[in-house]
Amino acid sequence: MELYAKRGFESTAVADIAERAGLTERTFYRHFADKREVLFYGAGALQEFLVGAVEKAPSSSAPIEVIVSALVEAATSVFEERREFARRRQAIIVANVELLERELVKLATLASALADALRQRGVPDPVASLAAEAGISLFKVAFQRWVDDSGKKTLAHFIRESSSQMKAVTAGRRPAPR
Amino acid sequence: MELYAKRGFESTAVADIAERAGLTERTFYRHFADKREVLFYGAGALQEFLVGAVEKAPSSSAPIEVIVSALVEAATSVFEERREFARRRQAIIVANVELLERELVKLATLASALADALRQRGVPDPVASLAAEAGISLFKVAFQRWVDDSGKKTLAHFIRESSSQMKAVTAGRRPAPR
Repeated sequence: MELYAKRGFESTAVADIAERAGLTERTFYRHFADKREVLFYGAGALQEFLVGAVEKAPSSSAPIEVIVSALVEAATSVFEERREFARRRQAIIVANVELLERELVKLATLASALADALRQRGVPDPVASLAAEAGISLFKVAFQRWVDDSGKKTLAHFIRESSSQMKAVTAGRRPAPR
Repeated sequence: MELYAKRGFESTAVADIAERAGLTERTFYRHFADKREVLFYGAGALQEFLVGAVEKAPSSSAPIEVIVSALVEAATSVFEERREFARRRQAIIVANVELLERELVKLATLASALADALRQRGVPDPVASLAAEAGISLFKVAFQRWVDDSGKKTLAHFIRESSSQMKAVTAGRRPAPR
């Protein structure tokens, strides 16, 4: 991450990353398919965490509440302490098309996994897909706002705020004139 | 498209595509950056169409109405006559990770362009981003349902239906038990 931020993603070699981490190149490739994967190391764990949270949500909760609560839980246990890391990672990703592609694929995979987890709870389609897609959409917006924010607001705060704004937006509410 | 459907995307060479289209390979590369691009030929035109529709929407419309109307307009003028084509294209894309990546990038680019077009109309953030993201999310769900549907329902029908379902979902409505 430090090397990517300093030298740029393209001009950082796997050998350099491995050296910095005290690994041989061979060991590096045992852990990561390629140098892009380093930045997406946590994606599998995040997906497991979110799917687990959906599975144990109260059965009385509406699908969107289930998703939003899972995202808030992940924010609290995974992200809040790591805004500086998230900020640097985000800057590297948006500067590189290939990384952005992979980020989008990971988010789409996450949306599919969440839709599946809702279906497992008996939520019919298209509600399951729509709730999962809406959740990932509002998470993207909330995450960007959190990363851009210079204050002390939490990611959980932005997720809850984006969720109620998403509700107002899809209900056809007009924003207050500037 | 026919060649991709018959032989699979990986084993179709640019030379074959060019031959089928009555072009030399050199002419092919003048029109397309690579063989993936053939499948995304219409993406730029679609984006222009949608942004144009957003620009000329009545100023009294709520942001989500502006987006949904633009999508319905595109459905009517671009997609309705081409379900068979859309179905074959979709089958090729979901079977290939690289194509799926590019499809996701195109959709994300479309969401950004629509958010920009809303900002141009004076819609503040995060409303502009949320309306555009919600619009693309419901379009993805509607498009898949239209492609999968064996009946005669239009894409416009599925977009309007997904839009009102999205509203119910984000409002926290619980789906009827199965």
